[in-house]
Amino acid sequence: MARFFIEEKSISGDKITVTGSDARHIGYSLRMKKGERIVFCREGTDYISEISKISSDSVICDIKEIIPCKSEPNVNLTIYQSLPKSDKMDLIIQKTVELGVHRIVPFISARTISRPDEKSAEKKIIRFNKISESAAKQSGRGIIPEIGEIKSFEECLEDAKQSDIKIICYENGGAKLSDTLFSNAKNISVFIGAEGGFEYSEIEKAKSAGFTPIYLGERILRCETCPIAITAIIMNLTDNLS
Amino acid sequence: MARFFIEEKSISGDKITVTGSDARHIGYSLRMKKGERIVFCREGTDYISEISKISSDSVICDIKEIIPCKSEPNVNLTIYQSLPKSDKMDLIIQKTVELGVHRIVPFISARTISRPDEKSAEKKIIRFNKISESAAKQSGRGIIPEIGEIKSFEECLEDAKQSDIKIICYENGGAKLSDTLFSNAKNISVFIGAEGGFEYSEIEKAKSAGFTPIYLGERILRCETCPIAITAIIMNLTDNLS
Repeated sequence: MARFFIEEKSISGDKITVTGSDARHIGYSLRMKKGERIVFCREGTDYISEISKISSDSVICDIKEIIPCKSEPNVNLTIYQSLPKSDKMDLIIQKTVELGVHRIVPFISARTISRPDEKSAEKKIIRFNKISESAAKQSGRGIIPEIGEIKSFEECLEDAKQSDIKIICYENGGAKLSDTLFSNAKNISVFIGAEGGFEYSEIEKAKSAGFTPIYLGERILRCETCPIAITAIIMNLTDNLS
Repeated sequence: MARFFIEEKSISGDKITVTGSDARHIGYSLRMKKGERIVFCREGTDYISEISKISSDSVICDIKEIIPCKSEPNVNLTIYQSLPKSDKMDLIIQKTVELGVHRIVPFISARTISRPDEKSAEKKIIRFNKISESAAKQSGRGIIPEIGEIKSFEECLEDAKQSDIKIICYENGGAKLSDTLFSNAKNISVFIGAEGGFEYSEIEKAKSAGFTPIYLGERILRCETCPIAITAIIMNLTDNLS
């Protein structure tokens, strides 16, 4: 069934009204007709709906069933990613969204090379969120993972404060990821460095903030490989890839 | 320490002789001098060596220590990958080599869209192996994972016959990857489809050949995401990411 993300204002009682580009997509591109079914999705909830009225600029549907979206993991994984160079962040967003990330927060740490000015940062965040939306649609997610504003390392430590599990990937050593006890964890925060990794003082700060440094072994992973691998492994360890 | 892959013929007694582009790289680009140390690597073994003589076209080194390469996993994971469209195979090779794959075999199955003719297949395999070599160097691998010739689905089933664990990823359902018992497994074979996945008859053939269909959950992974995720998860489950 075709899937569309909707905003809260589109839902009124047992009806959903879609306008704009989604309405054109339903009517023109998909050539859908009255009586056909669409899944509308909002914040992890699927609204199985039937088209009751379709015009050139709006589609009105009756909600037939409301169910939790089956594709959403039962953990909220936030990846805090030190901003890498060139378009590596695009790949990180696309792949981690497919794999089930909940939110991505780019940050600047001591060794971050990519340091966009305010204007170019704004543009980046808009593009990042578009990539997230597109990957969320393609992979059948129940939410569009948010790509937050670029923060400082310290702001991210503060942001992750309430998480049940706090991990920082450190290329110079740390615990095994598989020794982390994920049972009963709901909110998981993972910090990942950019090309230059983290300074020791940052690891110390993170440890003081309750983070566990994690070592991913002897092979040197490119900075964009690490978040993809971590997301896959955590989704597997928390039984969210089956 | 600088790392270089060498062929068997470069080793003679307790000496290693390097010529060609690697010799130029050591002498010109890295500006290395007599007495400095280099790690030469062959089939998972590291030869810690010291430069004894360096000229414009050759470098002669004394072998000081021979040790197993620490970065090599203790399992041999072969990814059999139905050939995807465009340059997706490049990303698959780069990322799975970083993560620890042992060998990649591209194949053509019923729904494979990309079907290169003999000449373009030859070119592809040469490029694929270059990508593997480059990723192996960058990530500090002890071997250059081989990217085999393009085979048929049936040839791959035959090729994987001796593996301890045989898995085929199937988007319509199967066992959990984490229920697979990897302990004592040495050779692991994983079949992954291209854009269109597998036909049911192929899954049946694979099952008859001792394969277990594995289901990776409700989120729809792009065909290039699946091998990257599987490699990360298997390396973690077999304790090869720590």
